[in-house]
Amino acid sequence: MYPPPSLIILKLLLSTLLLVTPSQSLSQGNHEDDHESSSLFCESWRFSVETNNAGNWSTIPSRCYEFVNHYMTGDRYVSDLGVTGRNALDYAKTVDIAGDGMDAWVFDIDETLLSMLAYYKLHKFRSTTLKVEVKWGLRHKLTVLPASLSLYNEIRQLGFTVFLLTGRPEWLRNQTVTNLLYAGYNDWERLILRQSYDERKKAIDYKSENRKQLEDEGYRIHGSLGDQWSDLLGYATAQRSFKYPNLMYYAA
Amino acid sequence: MYPPPSLIILKLLLSTLLLVTPSQSLSQGNHEDDHESSSLFCESWRFSVETNNAGNWSTIPSRCYEFVNHYMTGDRYVSDLGVTGRNALDYAKTVDIAGDGMDAWVFDIDETLLSMLAYYKLHKFRSTTLKVEVKWGLRHKLTVLPASLSLYNEIRQLGFTVFLLTGRPEWLRNQTVTNLLYAGYNDWERLILRQSYDERKKAIDYKSENRKQLEDEGYRIHGSLGDQWSDLLGYATAQRSFKYPNLMYYAA
Repeated sequence: MYPPPSLIILKLLLSTLLLVTPSQSLSQGNHEDDHESSSLFCESWRFSVETNNAGNWSTIPSRCYEFVNHYMTGDRYVSDLGVTGRNALDYAKTVDIAGDGMDAWVFDIDETLLSMLAYYKLHKFRSTTLKVEVKWGLRHKLTVLPASLSLYNEIRQLGFTVFLLTGRPEWLRNQTVTNLLYAGYNDWERLILRQSYDERKKAIDYKSENRKQLEDEGYRIHGSLGDQWSDLLGYATAQRSFKYPNLMYYAA
Repeated sequence: MYPPPSLIILKLLLSTLLLVTPSQSLSQGNHEDDHESSSLFCESWRFSVETNNAGNWSTIPSRCYEFVNHYMTGDRYVSDLGVTGRNALDYAKTVDIAGDGMDAWVFDIDETLLSMLAYYKLHKFRSTTLKVEVKWGLRHKLTVLPASLSLYNEIRQLGFTVFLLTGRPEWLRNQTVTNLLYAGYNDWERLILRQSYDERKKAIDYKSENRKQLEDEGYRIHGSLGDQWSDLLGYATAQRSFKYPNLMYYAA
């Protein structure tokens, strides 16, 4: 019923690899000193991930499992999303909109407009299998991130033309559209998904090429929002790029 | 005795402007809920600053004064420096050194190799006047950041040619060299300071131009370390750039 695994989007693939945290992490954090030193370490690990100092990191350090759980399910993740949204909106309001429809804003989808958090929670930040995970996402619909929906609507009201640029493959177009509409997003100009010839490309190249294409069509990309550095770096980058937190996985 | 204020480096100028925190911040944080909500807010503010989401931010939010003080003088700042240093070293070890002396690493100086922390502490993160501050720095010598000295020496031992690229003006060359040697740094290839014709340039342009010059001379810039995004973005950027924390000021 589903296309071969080779087509499955990079993010889901990565999340599967990363969510299998070694079981010894559970035995940590009982002692208060251990807990404090882990917290200090994990805060610094988070700094290295969110600044891109860590580069192409592959796994959540096992001693940070509790930290990530707490960060993602407590107040902090929501707070960071909110502040990022305000940063982006503050900037968006300073942009002169020409009114010719060519002032553009680019959004990533997974962990930016939609969230797998419900799935992560359900499995206590441990994954089962790739196939199950993908099916789950398609069946249960991914959750909207409220800060993102609010920003999305304000960006549109300011007069930006909105592009959705995702690493998801073309065969997920219908499900993706359904999920976006269900979550409350609408009126995007174009939903760009990976084509078969994009399959082997790094995320950063695939995303750069597609932004370049928009520039070649005359669009002025003022802003972009994504959870991965590969959404924000490369070439044909937006005038200002905004980084959402992601402690779950890294997409090169 | 000292050249006119117009020559004083951007960082010191900025730090002076920013350290004058409104006094009302002192009246905050007594109530536990206030403290918790401030902590949540300030953690998110920090995220926005360290990811560059905040862009050209100008002042520490007054409710984050205590947070910054705690971050800078407790364990966290040192821990973040340490992890960044390890990220950089891990990468440096993967670089193939050709042995022709053209494999380069670029370091920023202020808040990267040397630190004004002692000054900030002394004045409880409040500044007096620009002139006093500059004189203080020259007289008392800036403190070394141990993680930086350790990284610096390891980078050199790996065979990289080291360049120091700073926004400080040329007239501070002697004092800068004296301070660097005093702190334990030596054997850099070149110390690059702002010339008179660089005075009005943005930090990001000045730094990019000078990295480009190194590239034109044939150097391969594999890595760079700095506390400002203007050290790491722009053009002729290093293959990998490493961001040190800085919650004190932003240099555009």
